[in-house]
This record gives sequence, structure tokens and C-alpha cells, in this order.
Amino acid sequence: MPYTYTHPRPALTVDCIIFGYDHRLDEADLKILLIERDIEPFRGKWALPGGFVRMEETLEAAAKRELREETGLSNVYLEQLYTFGTPERDPRGRVISVSYFALVNLRSEELAAGTDARSAQWFSFKDMPALAFDHKTIIETAVERLRGKVRYQPIGFELLPDKFTLTELQTLYETVLETSLDKRNFRKKIESYELLRDTGETQRGKAHRAARLYTFDHKRYKQLEKYGFLFEI
Amino acid sequence: MPYTYTHPRPALTVDCIIFGYDHRLDEADLKILLIERDIEPFRGKWALPGGFVRMEETLEAAAKRELREETGLSNVYLEQLYTFGTPERDPRGRVISVSYFALVNLRSEELAAGTDARSAQWFSFKDMPALAFDHKTIIETAVERLRGKVRYQPIGFELLPDKFTLTELQTLYETVLETSLDKRNFRKKIESYELLRDTGETQRGKAHRAARLYTFDHKRYKQLEKYGFLFEI
Repeated sequence: MPYTYTHPRPALTVDCIIFGYDHRLDEADLKILLIERDIEPFRGKWALPGGFVRMEETLEAAAKRELREETGLSNVYLEQLYTFGTPERDPRGRVISVSYFALVNLRSEELAAGTDARSAQWFSFKDMPALAFDHKTIIETAVERLRGKVRYQPIGFELLPDKFTLTELQTLYETVLETSLDKRNFRKKIESYELLRDTGETQRGKAHRAARLYTFDHKRYKQLEKYGFLFEI
Repeated sequence: MPYTYTHPRPALTVDCIIFGYDHRLDEADLKILLIERDIEPFRGKWALPGGFVRMEETLEAAAKRELREETGLSNVYLEQLYTFGTPERDPRGRVISVSYFALVNLRSEELAAGTDARSAQWFSFKDMPALAFDHKTIIETAVERLRGKVRYQPIGFELLPDKFTLTELQTLYETVLETSLDKRNFRKKIESYELLRDTGETQRGKAHRAARLYTFDHKRYKQLEKYGFLFEI
């Protein structure tokens, strides 16, 4: 090696914050995927899926690999959130963690998570168990980022079924923002973004006052992801 | 140590992207602070200020220390941008870099940068020299983030003098967004945010058609930083 350096080195991990949303109205809840640790430190405590980065893989590849190994989830679009590096955040010594987050439709993903990793489980973000390391802080940072994103970019594509009612979309916003929204204002706002397409269909199984089903206009969705909007609450 | 682990470890650095803005109209330009490397690798090449993280300091403290040591700048509010960790980004081996960025008023900071570090220099972001490592990519990521922020949050507090004209504010937006804006539309938009206070004063040294001077309404500024707005272009 032409260049040598002897700086002390921290260990490097990745952690994944996977938000899961169940769009059934009677169970609408934003959840986070946790695993039960089976090694020290924090054995028996719940933690975010994650682990050590291998020297030959990118940070994102490490996050995807750990997520798959520990929860069975794959094909998830991970976005880098923040890097946590306070010296005392890990009792084993200096460990830097690069965190990634993703949104998934909990109904279509829950089986996958259940089969591969017995210890993976969804928890409501309003009712978290005691967490290992600084994972509570990491989750709070992720929730804050998610709430920011919802107000600037369209959301729902990953979380709702292909066809959904306006009530389902409103419930998603209310769940993420933890607030209740006025139905009429919400519909006016959503309409102004020209984001939805009326499928002409109505919700099945509800003969009376069946609600219309919508899909996202994908081109417009991409546009709004790029140029943004402001969802005022 | 009750827990041992022998995972290979990467080296850890921080890099600082410091955007400097000169608000003089005839020199309006967004600049980035670079240092000339005096060691290998990339000796003689320009690079972002930065360096190795010490085991006892936080990531942010490391970024502040490196910035001060290499450029003389201090009291800069650094915000974490992104963590770069592609295996081949550093010829010395695996090096992870956590990047931080800041906005400074170039006119009030340039002397400080000049005295402490002979090799620190401001470059226009439209005219960068060849850069060490993946610093070009890091800067591109920072510029993209800055342009996103400008469209969602007020900007200018750190970059403009206390009292400024609407033309100076417009020039700032035009410089950051690299586009020209319609004067009338710009003023209408800015007015709608209720962000500015008319000082009642006018620009000195310009007897005829002297432009009004404004200040930011700090309370409103903080509000808009938190709740955002959408600056459509």
C-alpha cells in the first residue's frame, strides 16, 4: 500500500426502519418491524433489523442483506435516513450506524416476514416495546422524516392497494400525521393535486352508498415526487 | 469486554460542504469551500475539508473540528447530508464518509478562511476544479439537497445581510436554482409567505429609485422552516 494510516476505526453497522401500513380501515395503523435479539448485548430486547457491514458490499446492499436475513423481506426500496455515531451508543465500543428506511404494504408483506424469521414482529409505532441501543431515537428520527415527506410528496403508492377509496387515503394521512382531518378539506386538497384517477368502479361488498375506487396517476405521482406540493394541516 | 466481535472495520471520515454566497449583485455566485491536499492520495488535488473521526468525538464534532483546522471557519451550523460508503471510493481501502453541509455568508466569512489555511479557497459551483475521491458526487448531492430545501423552506437568513432588497433576495433564489425568475411573480410569491418586514429604509448610495430594505420576520421564518411552503418555479 502506498499510503498507510493508523487511525483507530469504529465498527460499522446498518439499521433498517421498515414502516408497514395496514390499509384495512378497522386496523389502520402505522407499524414498525422489529426483531428480538438473541445475542448480547441487549439479548431478549427488541431492535431494528440490521447488522455489520461487510468490507466488500455497499451500505445499501448491507441493509438489504440484513433485512432479508433477519426478516425475510426483500425487494424493498430503502432510502438512507441518517447516520448515528454518538460514541456511547453501543456498549461494545464505538459503532457507527447508517440507517435506512422503507414503506411497505403490511398486508402483502406480512407472510414473508413471518416465515423466514421467527423473531420478526410488527409493532405499532404508538406502542413500542423497550428497545436496544439508541433504536428509539432512530425510530423517532424516521417518523419525523416520514411526516415531513408526507407533507411535501405524494404518499400511498407503496402502502395502499392498487385501487382505494378516498376514505382509505385520508385514513393513511391521519395515521401518519397522527391527527384527524376534515373530510371536505382533505378531498378538495387531494383533488387540487390532480393525483388520482377515478376507476369508475366502486368498493365491492357494499351495495348502499358504495365508495368510488381510485388509482394513482403514476405520471403525475412521479412529477409531484420530484417537484413537491405542500399538504397544509 | 463482555462482548467481543471481530468484524473487519472501515475507516471513518467526515467531509464538509460549505456553500458560500456573496450577495453583492455584480458578483452573485454560489461558491463551495475547497482545500488543496498536501498529502497522498490525491496530493495537489482539491477536496472538501474533512478528515478522520476520533474515537471519542461525535460525528458532528469531528466535522466542526476538521472544518476549523483546515479552513479557519468556526461557528457554522452543520447539517448532516448523507453517508458515502462505496467500497472503491478511497484508494487507501474502505473509508466511509459522513458528509455535513452548511450555508455561510461569504463576505463575512472569507477573511477567517483566508488567514488560517493558506490552501482553502472558494470555487464557484459552476466551475469546479478536478476533485479528489468522490467529492464531485458529494457536492452534486449537496447542491441537489440545497435546491430541494430552497423550494420547501425559507432561505437567506444565513446568506444575506440583515437588511436586503427584494432584488437581492431574488438574485439569491436565481443563483441557487440556476434559473431566472419573473420579478413580478417572485414578489407576489414572497409577499404571500408574509416572511419579510419592511424596514422603512432604502438602500444607501442610490438617490434615485432607491430600493426598499427588508428584514426577515424571524418568528415567521422559524414557522416556515418547520411547516414549509412550496416555492413553485
